[in-house]
Amino acid sequence: MPVCFKLIMKSAFYPVILAGGSGTRFWPRSRRRRAKQVLALDGKQTMIQKTVERLAPVSHEKDFWIITNEFVGDEIQRQLPSIPPKQMVIEPEPRNTAPAIGLAAFILERIDPASIIGMFPADHVIADEKKFRKVLQRAIEIAGRGENIVVMGVRPSRAETGYGYIETGDKLDQELFRVRRFTEKPNQQRAEEFVTAGNYYWNSGIFVWSARTLTRALREHLSETTPYLETIAAAWGTRDFEKKLGQLYPKCENISIDYAVLEPRSAKGEHSSNLYCLPADFGWNDLGSWAALYEHHAAALPGTNGRNVVEGKDVYAVNATGNYIYAKNKFVAAVGVHNLVVVETDDAILITTREQSQDVGKVVKYLNDKKMTDLV
Amino acid sequence: MPVCFKLIMKSAFYPVILAGGSGTRFWPRSRRRRAKQVLALDGKQTMIQKTVERLAPVSHEKDFWIITNEFVGDEIQRQLPSIPPKQMVIEPEPRNTAPAIGLAAFILERIDPASIIGMFPADHVIADEKKFRKVLQRAIEIAGRGENIVVMGVRPSRAETGYGYIETGDKLDQELFRVRRFTEKPNQQRAEEFVTAGNYYWNSGIFVWSARTLTRALREHLSETTPYLETIAAAWGTRDFEKKLGQLYPKCENISIDYAVLEPRSAKGEHSSNLYCLPADFGWNDLGSWAALYEHHAAALPGTNGRNVVEGKDVYAVNATGNYIYAKNKFVAAVGVHNLVVVETDDAILITTREQSQDVGKVVKYLNDKKMTDLV
Repeated sequence: MPVCFKLIMKSAFYPVILAGGSGTRFWPRSRRRRAKQVLALDGKQTMIQKTVERLAPVSHEKDFWIITNEFVGDEIQRQLPSIPPKQMVIEPEPRNTAPAIGLAAFILERIDPASIIGMFPADHVIADEKKFRKVLQRAIEIAGRGENIVVMGVRPSRAETGYGYIETGDKLDQELFRVRRFTEKPNQQRAEEFVTAGNYYWNSGIFVWSARTLTRALREHLSETTPYLETIAAAWGTRDFEKKLGQLYPKCENISIDYAVLEPRSAKGEHSSNLYCLPADFGWNDLGSWAALYEHHAAALPGTNGRNVVEGKDVYAVNATGNYIYAKNKFVAAVGVHNLVVVETDDAILITTREQSQDVGKVVKYLNDKKMTDLV
Repeated sequence: MPVCFKLIMKSAFYPVILAGGSGTRFWPRSRRRRAKQVLALDGKQTMIQKTVERLAPVSHEKDFWIITNEFVGDEIQRQLPSIPPKQMVIEPEPRNTAPAIGLAAFILERIDPASIIGMFPADHVIADEKKFRKVLQRAIEIAGRGENIVVMGVRPSRAETGYGYIETGDKLDQELFRVRRFTEKPNQQRAEEFVTAGNYYWNSGIFVWSARTLTRALREHLSETTPYLETIAAAWGTRDFEKKLGQLYPKCENISIDYAVLEPRSAKGEHSSNLYCLPADFGWNDLGSWAALYEHHAAALPGTNGRNVVEGKDVYAVNATGNYIYAKNKFVAAVGVHNLVVVETDDAILITTREQSQDVGKVVKYLNDKKMTDLV
């Protein structure tokens, strides 16, 4: 009875959205208090609103969890009023993904021992939402059996050196593979080899597993941090929670879930690791830089090369191609310039090239060094 | 008795500043009501304030005349409160330099038949003011004799195609030549030939002559326009002046003094034209584009190549060279960009290259076409 099955799955599935990023890559639009996840980079909704909306048909709003930081917490609550406030956990200090998703797992295991947890970055673009949800449903189903860990892989469309890759092994069916290995960001040559090999996928950062599987994995692979997370989780729902969180969370190891659990687990060998990859093409883009945002928007424009992507009040471009221009306040004239990124906000202007736009972090560092905190 | 001589010269010398330019080349800083001549492009004083200050030791403030337009007239009066308001003539329509300087000549001839007139653009840079005044004193002296017309030539430092050139003939002394010919803006090859030849000078647009010489030349070469100018001049100082100016000035031929008088006069041959050239190196720069302004400022900076010229609130440049950045309101970060011009004003931003910055006129045309008059 698939309908009944689906309802059971829905009740047990908890999306945990990791929204702690500081998002310096979109400076000057992104700031500590306006990090990427709370910006509307792709349409009218913000990245986190889109993330929740995309997942809503698979879960209930009351079952969402958000792990975020003090800078954007209030803004997220404002943007997502129907998420229960006590399911928004504010990290007292950033500790990367392992403590964040780990804390959610320990809490959810106490609330519902049959919980299936999905871990989702708050700030990625997914163009084909229906396909995404179809793959996610399958992941939930697989994660519900035994101690399976499912990662969503993205078929690489280029030899990208900015992402981690998943090397797959046995093909179990048309769309399911065992994971052989997680690899770090490769160099150009290795990235090209991965793409040619055909069994490598981009690591989307989306994982699905049961709360129990995750808590067991943490006990095994992150034994020092686990007691802190268990103590905090035990206080959830009590007036002690904030205090415990503030005391113990900063003691947790600052480590990603990939490093902490998935890589050591994959080292057990693909047949005993219980790691599965569901590869898919659902138009995934992590929007990691202004250049990536340009490409995302340019792909949606008519024509082929040299399109200017303009988000602005009024822009006039003459003999100008391939530029990304964002200016909500002022008229912008671009004359004879190519492949630039121009971003104007109320208090700052960024001028860079698409190629160098990932270096915008240097500006944020400069502003921090100079104590120009208004601009950060 | 040189002192006495000097005093006589001073009393007869009237600087006429032509300040009717619309200055679109410095958009978005320059606008119809904030044309180049009323902008502070080179230091704290505006271009016209600097022009007057530079000339003041050679004349009296009460002897200055300014020919300008309705858009910047009030601003000029505000910037130069000691210039007698009735010596500021507001052209009802732009008619280029011949009617402008011609009207001044007809008026001044009536006021003081011995007037020596200097014609000065309002918006040029002159670095060595002492040298400039020395050359000017000589020009005044020469113009006081007979029907001499003196033009200040600038020794060319490069094969510039944007300027007119003066071809000189007989050398009368170390710093005085007869003019053989005025030439239009040359192409690159001709410009290079001129520089190599050694007897060509840039036409600075600065001329000195007696009012009588000029009025005679106008009667000879611009016979249709002359009666209008004479009628307007006769009304100067009466309540009819504005009316006559409004009625007759628009009927004058729209022509430069170079075309109207100097070129036909030079065609008479250098020995009968009475045209003289005083060449000099007084650090002249017409600041004809953002690129020229960059070069003017960059030359004053320490170091050699790749200097960024910054006029702004706060600018951070990283891996960025050769840029001109003007931003008084906002913090600007320039990352990995080279040889750009970035100009931010209250309502607009220009992004161009130094090489293409002369095309900024296209933006002004676009704004006019679109009736976006606030930005023009």
